[in-house]
Amino acid sequence: MTSPRIAIVFGSDSDWDTMEKCVKQLEVFNEAPFVEVMSAHRNPDRVAEFARGAEENGIEVIIAAAGMSNALAGAVAAHTPLPVIGVPLESGPMHGTDALYSTVQMPPGIPVATVSIGSAGAKNAALLAIQILARKDETLAAAFRQFKKDQVDAVARRNAKVQEKMA
Amino acid sequence: MTSPRIAIVFGSDSDWDTMEKCVKQLEVFNEAPFVEVMSAHRNPDRVAEFARGAEENGIEVIIAAAGMSNALAGAVAAHTPLPVIGVPLESGPMHGTDALYSTVQMPPGIPVATVSIGSAGAKNAALLAIQILARKDETLAAAFRQFKKDQVDAVARRNAKVQEKMA
Amino acid sequence: MTSPRIAIVFGSDSDWDTMEKCVKQLEVFNEAPFVEVMSAHRNPDRVAEFARGAEENGIEVIIAAAGMSNALAGAVAAHTPLPVIGVPLESGPMHGTDALYSTVQMPPGIPVATVSIGSAGAKNAALLAIQILARKDETLAAAFRQFKKDQVDAVARRNAKVQEKMA
Amino acid sequence: MTSPRIAIVFGSDSDWDTMEKCVKQLEVFNEAPFVEVMSAHRNPDRVAEFARGAEENGIEVIIAAAGMSNALAGAVAAHTPLPVIGVPLESGPMHGTDALYSTVQMPPGIPVATVSIGSAGAKNAALLAIQILARKDETLAAAFRQFKKDQVDAVARRNAKVQEKMA
Amino acid sequence: MTSPRIAIVFGSDSDWDTMEKCVKQLEVFNEAPFVEVMSAHRNPDRVAEFARGAEENGIEVIIAAAGMSNALAGAVAAHTPLPVIGVPLESGPMHGTDALYSTVQMPPGIPVATVSIGSAGAKNAALLAIQILARKDETLAAAFRQFKKDQVDAVARRNAKVQEKMA
Amino acid sequence: MTSPRIAIVFGSDSDWDTMEKCVKQLEVFNEAPFVEVMSAHRNPDRVAEFARGAEENGIEVIIAAAGMSNALAGAVAAHTPLPVIGVPLESGPMHGTDALYSTVQMPPGIPVATVSIGSAGAKNAALLAIQILARKDETLAAAFRQFKKDQVDAVARRNAKVQEKMA
Amino acid sequence: MTSPRIAIVFGSDSDWDTMEKCVKQLEVFNEAPFVEVMSAHRNPDRVAEFARGAEENGIEVIIAAAGMSNALAGAVAAHTPLPVIGVPLESGPMHGTDALYSTVQMPPGIPVATVSIGSAGAKNAALLAIQILARKDETLAAAFRQFKKDQVDAVARRNAKVQEKMA
Amino acid sequence: MTSPRIAIVFGSDSDWDTMEKCVKQLEVFNEAPFVEVMSAHRNPDRVAEFARGAEENGIEVIIAAAGMSNALAGAVAAHTPLPVIGVPLESGPMHGTDALYSTVQMPPGIPVATVSIGSAGAKNAALLAIQILARKDETLAAAFRQFKKDQVDAVARRNAKVQEKMA
Repeated sequence: MTSPRIAIVFGSDSDWDTMEKCVKQLEVFNEAPFVEVMSAHRNPDRVAEFARGAEENGIEVIIAAAGMSNALAGAVAAHTPLPVIGVPLESGPMHGTDALYSTVQMPPGIPVATVSIGSAGAKNAALLAIQILARKDETLAAAFRQFKKDQVDAVARRNAKVQEKMA
Repeated sequence: MTSPRIAIVFGSDSDWDTMEKCVKQLEVFNEAPFVEVMSAHRNPDRVAEFARGAEENGIEVIIAAAGMSNALAGAVAAHTPLPVIGVPLESGPMHGTDALYSTVQMPPGIPVATVSIGSAGAKNAALLAIQILARKDETLAAAFRQFKKDQVDAVARRNAKVQEKMA
Repeated sequence: MTSPRIAIVFGSDSDWDTMEKCVKQLEVFNEAPFVEVMSAHRNPDRVAEFARGAEENGIEVIIAAAGMSNALAGAVAAHTPLPVIGVPLESGPMHGTDALYSTVQMPPGIPVATVSIGSAGAKNAALLAIQILARKDETLAAAFRQFKKDQVDAVARRNAKVQEKMA
Repeated sequence: MTSPRIAIVFGSDSDWDTMEKCVKQLEVFNEAPFVEVMSAHRNPDRVAEFARGAEENGIEVIIAAAGMSNALAGAVAAHTPLPVIGVPLESGPMHGTDALYSTVQMPPGIPVATVSIGSAGAKNAALLAIQILARKDETLAAAFRQFKKDQVDAVARRNAKVQEKMA
Repeated sequence: MTSPRIAIVFGSDSDWDTMEKCVKQLEVFNEAPFVEVMSAHRNPDRVAEFARGAEENGIEVIIAAAGMSNALAGAVAAHTPLPVIGVPLESGPMHGTDALYSTVQMPPGIPVATVSIGSAGAKNAALLAIQILARKDETLAAAFRQFKKDQVDAVARRNAKVQEKMA
Repeated sequence: MTSPRIAIVFGSDSDWDTMEKCVKQLEVFNEAPFVEVMSAHRNPDRVAEFARGAEENGIEVIIAAAGMSNALAGAVAAHTPLPVIGVPLESGPMHGTDALYSTVQMPPGIPVATVSIGSAGAKNAALLAIQILARKDETLAAAFRQFKKDQVDAVARRNAKVQEKMA
Repeated sequence: MTSPRIAIVFGSDSDWDTMEKCVKQLEVFNEAPFVEVMSAHRNPDRVAEFARGAEENGIEVIIAAAGMSNALAGAVAAHTPLPVIGVPLESGPMHGTDALYSTVQMPPGIPVATVSIGSAGAKNAALLAIQILARKDETLAAAFRQFKKDQVDAVARRNAKVQEKMA
Repeated sequence: MTSPRIAIVFGSDSDWDTMEKCVKQLEVFNEAPFVEVMSAHRNPDRVAEFARGAEENGIEVIIAAAGMSNALAGAVAAHTPLPVIGVPLESGPMHGTDALYSTVQMPPGIPVATVSIGSAGAKNAALLAIQILARKDETLAAAFRQFKKDQVDAVARRNAKVQEKMA
């Protein structure tokens, strides 16, 4: 567990379909994250141990995702000085509104950098982690600038598809 | 810290005005609770230590109250087999809806017995704790039965007040 | 109806798929609950009769589940000094938000120990009932401590599944 | 308790300031209601007794008001074939959204005629009761038709006030 | 259009699947309603004409159903002294929360008797209309009392189904 | 009532404090609006008459404001081909969320151009009306372009204030 | 890009199924809109360029649609004096409530004429654009008057369908 | 504008009371931020210019705060590869729920690191910025570790206050 700079933790293997998007997005930037299923409520000691040791283990940014009463991001943030990104997941009858409020409404003193609910958030968490790492890694910074340029081209391609449909 | 059977923990001294109602309600039943300000996000090790040791220290029921992203009740529940009662507090611009969702929407495996937002919940948490203790303490059970009877009389008094106003 | 210590009541047979999870979770702890379909709105006299007689009939904890305007938990709580656990069900166009507010926002004086909406809540209601009974039953207390340990292992198994998928 | 045709019940004397508007509106139509503070959760037996006897006692329409987890209207409706009008009150941190959902989201089989939250609802409950009674009382029907005409004039007066302010 | 005492109006033929439940429930009580698709926004003159003439045409209670920005119930109520029952329908991305707020939050002076969102409300609107008519029709009153008794038996049957499943 | 090109209608003189901001904003553009208090629920015939005659009377854009179950904008839109701007007002316990849903969630076929809740919306309704009229009135178009430029300067002034406070 | 008077912009080709309804509705009025996929977040420079040049390019009304944090309508409005119609789309776990709040809650000074969420809004945006253009184009005005008359007939047809089903 | 590493931008001088908490929190870490009032809707060209030039001007992290339809954070993020922290402000009748949804629900590709609504968020934005800078600045990292330790002591002081009140 030495090389990864980004850690992704989430509460259940059922979250994998969403969080795989996060891993895939990091791979675009050649970042292989540390990934572990852990739960602030089921194995809190592991969460504390992980978070306390993260910095020493070379982790620089932590992405924490959970649905419903998402306490994982906050629990991680409680135990580490590293920036923590929280992804509210869509599981359960409230479709992620509960997870959003739980993740973002942190009390003063312990920020969690919250992104969109569900898949969009899983992808954006990866990008935010890259943006943070890019502050000290010019290769990543260049790659991210390129990513933003590619987005402009992607809109052009999407526009082309619509123009075709209208023709 | 041996004699109290009920512990009340909450995130800040600014919650005292609300949680004092909880303490006062317990005192009606001659229960002097253990009370400590602790925060799942600010001093999580103390929360874990407290929760892990609670049963051994003679605590039987724990009441945990916090506003906003209320992680305290869940964090306590993660570390103890004791029943945990969660009080969502009203602080912040969402007036407790965030705290309610955070407290009640626990994942399967770790229940938090959630009561009403704010003052009503502070009082009801005390009563629920009494109801739980009463399962093994006939004196408390009798006192609670009396409490329910007194509520009937209280309605009568409230009705009398309205009849007076109407007269 | 003498032996069961836990009663589960809910408003309709259509709730069975959800509440069966509650029964199954109790069976893990060798608790065979008393189960009855009853409705605070359709047969309120039976609800009152049941709740008034519950303690005398050996019931120690009552789990009440209903969707929409969930009045069942509150109605039961009105008629018994026993601790009442409320499960807001997911039925109807509001997906349980209505049931959550109805169940949890009890006025001061009559607590309902509210758990998560739907299936997660059905399971957690069972666990909360066990936690309450465990206060006077060391066998249950030991079983619950084991349950919590098993949860830690379950997370490890979930983690293993994800590691496999990533490999 | 023989003469009144309309009963108004509500959970606490603290609701009087709002419900007085209901009584006052009825007095405009020369209806002196039966009024009693009662609580579905605190003195449920009285609620059942009242509701069961209401029709026999000459009551034709019942107005039930409560805040938070408003179970009163539903509890009354459960015990009477009379039409029940529910007023969700504004008390508590949710400002009546909880009471609205609790009052209106009744399961199929037991309607509650729900009106606006708070003061507007208190007044409208009275008017709805008059509309129902007017189906069998031509004097009331005529009075209500006049009331509607007066509302047209009231708008004209309000308009005049604004024109003055603009002048 | 002389004989029906109850009118059901709604905004679109796509609402029929829901509102048919309302018609069916009335038929249980031998009430054949007047039914017409009309829209407060698309043919408002017909709505006004209908509502203004309803009382004279023998209608005693009007049920108005619409989704989204449900203005139909209020528009009908504006033009008639008859009691108006509003059913918020479930159509659209907000699943009826928009319709509920639009239907129930009437300003002081013009009540709409609002029932549950969607199918439950469609059925309950019929029952509420029967309850209102029953105030002057002893046959209906007797039928409604019987309906309430049948509900008690229905719960027993539902309970039997669950007991079977558990056996 | 020939000269005004913009009409502002709202439900009560108590809305004046908010809607005065709309009038004032129009005056900046030298537009003196027609203003009248009218209510879709209290004097619907006047609303219909006004809306039906508006175009003929020289009105080009109508601004309709109301709180709670805001039916006014929709009712006006039902009776006129003119563009209708809806302002959801903040009155009542829901602080305008009910009015927003009622105003904006119009069914297909009858648009209401909805702006922000309350004061911000009152001002923006005026500006939107100006933007619409500017399509055929070059003087207004020029004035609106200037207004947008002035907003840029206003931000600079606001920035200066903050820089001062920081100094 | 000279002839179209109405521009429709939206964030992704995945929005086409919804926005096609907008285009189709315009075609009924013989308006062929300018259509382009653009994103306030992905290619903001194109959005600014488009909006700044729109008036000069003959555009008179702009329709902007996006889901989630809908910034497109506001970004367009920031750069043009033309009236901007915002359509909140239904995409994502919040089903458009996020997009509605983002679109409509514009600060004072920059109105966005917001219509219903999703398909209803896509159609209504087209109609609102026609209403605005009709202020200076009598052919369109006549066509819109006819459209409103046709809606009345459409309700009659819908009513006929229901009468058939009931027969 | 060369030395500051953190920029704070917000929409109005009326936001200063809240955002001053952000500045003050940064000062604790000896970070003097660049501060400017700018608005995505009122002076969007300045926002674009600022965001495009930020990295070159030595800014490493941007904090953007706005109420209502908060487009500022997203607009900044659209124009810079730097990490952007969004603070939803509490202004307006929705008390920041609108701003929260607008800030956090960013589409895939453009993350905004969202923190709590209002004052708590203003403070947490500063801390998150420090956490990000600390990745490349050991002095800041050490200061932040100390800050976390001080929080533990702060809880102890809060607890002492409550113990005093109880004594």
